Amino acid sequence: MRRIGVFDSGVGGLSVTKELINARVFEQIIYYGDTARVPYGVKDQNTIIRYALEAVEFFKNFEIDLLIVACNTVSAYALDEMRAQSNFKILGVVEPGVEAVVSTDISLDAQILVLATHATITSGAYQSALQHRGYSNIAAKTTGLFVPIVEEGLYSGAILDATIEHYLSACKQPDAIILGCTHFPLIKDQISRYFNNKSLIIHSGEAISMQLLEEFGEIDKNLKTEIKLFASQNPEALKQTAKDWLT
Amino acid sequence: MRRIGVFDSGVGGLSVTKELINARVFEQIIYYGDTARVPYGVKDQNTIIRYALEAVEFFKNFEIDLLIVACNTVSAYALDEMRAQSNFKILGVVEPGVEAVVSTDISLDAQILVLATHATITSGAYQSALQHRGYSNIAAKTTGLFVPIVEEGLYSGAILDATIEHYLSACKQPDAIILGCTHFPLIKDQISRYFNNKSLIIHSGEAISMQLLEEFGEIDKNLKTEIKLFASQNPEALKQTAKDWLT
Repeated sequence: MRRIGVFDSGVGGLSVTKELINARVFEQIIYYGDTARVPYGVKDQNTIIRYALEAVEFFKNFEIDLLIVACNTVSAYALDEMRAQSNFKILGVVEPGVEAVVSTDISLDAQILVLATHATITSGAYQSALQHRGYSNIAAKTTGLFVPIVEEGLYSGAILDATIEHYLSACKQPDAIILGCTHFPLIKDQISRYFNNKSLIIHSGEAISMQLLEEFGEIDKNLKTEIKLFASQNPEALKQTAKDWLT
Repeated sequence: MRRIGVFDSGVGGLSVTKELINARVFEQIIYYGDTARVPYGVKDQNTIIRYALEAVEFFKNFEIDLLIVACNTVSAYALDEMRAQSNFKILGVVEPGVEAVVSTDISLDAQILVLATHATITSGAYQSALQHRGYSNIAAKTTGLFVPIVEEGLYSGAILDATIEHYLSACKQPDAIILGCTHFPLIKDQISRYFNNKSLIIHSGEAISMQLLEEFGEIDKNLKTEIKLFASQNPEALKQTAKDWLT
């Protein structure tokens, strides 16, 4: 049986999980959200690595073929340390997000805007991965308030509008926008509209499931993936969110 | 030597610490902020109690006379459990906040509005303490987004205005407002202005230091309180914030 693990700081990784279910690549998904300690995006590097290594220990309880790190912040800071401590393959979301940009036809001098948490932006992970692929016009913007706004379910309205204006008014019109946080796809339309729907929007969750589909291939069109959900706090709330998001 | 401990989920308790310094009641303050796991206001009861008991163990390393729980969420949920596990006195901020209301001349049928995090409001701690003192018109409102907004330093402007409107537009004009979170005093003026500066504003931090001054008495007008700062993540950042706030 093909079994995959998904690790996220909270519930946001369910958006990646949904893509994985739709891709029909794995028979079982073990999801672990560190809901007691979310958000990670305001934590410092040492703390993020410490918590990420605890997650590796958790996943050692299961025979997984691959661990997806759905959280951009963990992907940006802790992959090397996690790999050194695990006996399974680990894949973050930063590289697939950048590969998704590469797979489009935008030019190397296109204006690319990365939106993410404080920790992810500070790590420089997206910026250096993009530079490494030859892109030269990269703007990176910390948009931390988007996280609690999405968590309050305020996907539109005056608060979100004011926050988008606050963060993005100084940004040049981007050719592509990388949504570098699992929460941001939920306000994708509002971000896109702010730039007159003229920017290509890249969501790492979609990118990663495309990559896995290529690598592993679809198992069966009728496959019903089994999901096992774990949380460091209030697993019932995670299960309820999963019910809403995944069905 | 009189030594006091101050526990908070993050840096917010420094506002209480400042009041304690000004009151000149203690010669040494041991401050511990659980900055790695902040915010507590979105966590559930079991997690809050677990983290609060870890803080008790931390303070057992020092001979303190009293522990102040500056965090409203911990005060609302975990005081009994903390007291059962400690050999020092523990004081939360909910009771002093309510006593501060009692010490004013507002009537028992005055409209009282409690603003706090999701966890604090859900606990019902302020509501039942106020009812217990005879107040009958109590409104309680979760205003969770105020926390990250204050943490981003957005003490005024369009985002805060939209958020105040979102949370408070349905509230009746209050006679008194209890700021039930250490972050909220930083946006006290904006909240007050929304209600035409006609509401009495109660801040638990001020209330607790008044209570301690009464109980212990001022030591010495020239006393320079020594502060020792500890954090579960990035103590340097806590020290920098303390430098900004306390001097």
